[in-house]
Amino acid sequence: MIVEIIIIGNEILTGHTLDTNSQYIAKKITEMGGQVRRIIKVPDAINEIADAVKYALSHEPDFIITTGGLGPTYDDKTAQAIAVALNVPLVRNQKAYVLIRDRYLDLYQSGLVDSYDMTPPREKMADLPEGVEVIPNRVGTAPGFHITKDKTTIICLPGVPDEMKDMFEREVMKLLESKAEELVYKEYDVAVEITDETKLAPIVRQVMDEFPRVYVKSHPTGYSKKGKIVVTISVQAPTEEEADSILKKAVERLLELVYNRLSLEDLT
Amino acid sequence: MIVEIIIIGNEILTGHTLDTNSQYIAKKITEMGGQVRRIIKVPDAINEIADAVKYALSHEPDFIITTGGLGPTYDDKTAQAIAVALNVPLVRNQKAYVLIRDRYLDLYQSGLVDSYDMTPPREKMADLPEGVEVIPNRVGTAPGFHITKDKTTIICLPGVPDEMKDMFEREVMKLLESKAEELVYKEYDVAVEITDETKLAPIVRQVMDEFPRVYVKSHPTGYSKKGKIVVTISVQAPTEEEADSILKKAVERLLELVYNRLSLEDLT
Repeated sequence: MIVEIIIIGNEILTGHTLDTNSQYIAKKITEMGGQVRRIIKVPDAINEIADAVKYALSHEPDFIITTGGLGPTYDDKTAQAIAVALNVPLVRNQKAYVLIRDRYLDLYQSGLVDSYDMTPPREKMADLPEGVEVIPNRVGTAPGFHITKDKTTIICLPGVPDEMKDMFEREVMKLLESKAEELVYKEYDVAVEITDETKLAPIVRQVMDEFPRVYVKSHPTGYSKKGKIVVTISVQAPTEEEADSILKKAVERLLELVYNRLSLEDLT
Repeated sequence: MIVEIIIIGNEILTGHTLDTNSQYIAKKITEMGGQVRRIIKVPDAINEIADAVKYALSHEPDFIITTGGLGPTYDDKTAQAIAVALNVPLVRNQKAYVLIRDRYLDLYQSGLVDSYDMTPPREKMADLPEGVEVIPNRVGTAPGFHITKDKTTIICLPGVPDEMKDMFEREVMKLLESKAEELVYKEYDVAVEITDETKLAPIVRQVMDEFPRVYVKSHPTGYSKKGKIVVTISVQAPTEEEADSILKKAVERLLELVYNRLSLEDLT
């Protein structure tokens, strides 16, 4: 399962806001045995969003997941941009309209908003590309949606993290599982005592050559933390047992090459 | 000044590591009056990095800034990928070689590494695309570099935040200033008491129509924080005084529209 993520919002590109949505989604995809191939962050501009969607589509991933730009303000432009990218009209989606109307009625009855009128900004959130399936928003108000183009399913979620996560766990996981490989992902971080990454380089290479399912990545932290380098060893394998077993062997091999003597038990 | 940022590293795409480099760079560019048009994150794969560089080049930004992939391990592939993207050979850069050799000698003399030999992993960091200018690394060991293609200068920095920031402040700012407009960026966050973003939408629009240099962005936080929405008002103007003056007027106008009576002084 190959996934591309598109994060939409000027606040990310000015540095005002730190994007954490892409890390959350990337973790989930990785845990499901999938691979995030690319993350693109673009401003609230129809042509920039549409360009990113077309670029992502050109790589034919299984999924494109976008966050942001579904709300009621003039600069929420994701629905328009998806319509442009897919060359379909933007239409009033009746299912979305009813969901939004019912949400505002709920919020009104709970005293959280002071009217349940379907004002133009509220109606706007129901104007979606023709042919989408709507994803209800139980935390906020703007619905998400998904639509399939050739072999790629585009899933559009809100940018507010709580809303995005609720939708992701409740609805998006099910969509992803339809294309997920039966692979288990496991990773293990180990801090090895070695003076510098240049000495680690041939060892990392050796472990990867010996364990084809394993990926070894060293994380240099600078010479301030003298003599310790964190190494992430990760594996994707068909079963939990196999993943654990390969991971254990690879970690032991790495440590053996670093220390020429220690096993995993000696260190942890 | 238009900038695209490319963040390189598998650890970002698996969700293992939260990227903060792009926010740091985006803030700096914004403060200089520039605009980050796009942020792309790709794994440690030559074709993915080269593809992202070519995609960014196709938009003809003033600068492309990359972070990551300059170190000594086999999966540090940025230099190779830039060479592929620009169709130039990878060559041993003598200036980089001397910098690296001298750094390891320093580190050896400080007792931080146990040899100053130029081993193949250390030499590897001096293999750079033909024609680059080298940027010394005073914090770590891998030098950065920059190279200009048509109207775009590509600047490649390490991924370790401390190394990246030191290079950015010491060397990159000077490069950017050569193309920076004489614009000052200012922003102001104000929390307005309003039940929901749909009521704010027409007000945001009105303020932007009245103040063409101003950008107004509301940040919905969900209904848990009832009745408060944070709005960022930002402006780019030729002088500090002008920016402050426009910003003050725009904030006051926003508050007037929200409250029909209050001025900035009443609130802060």
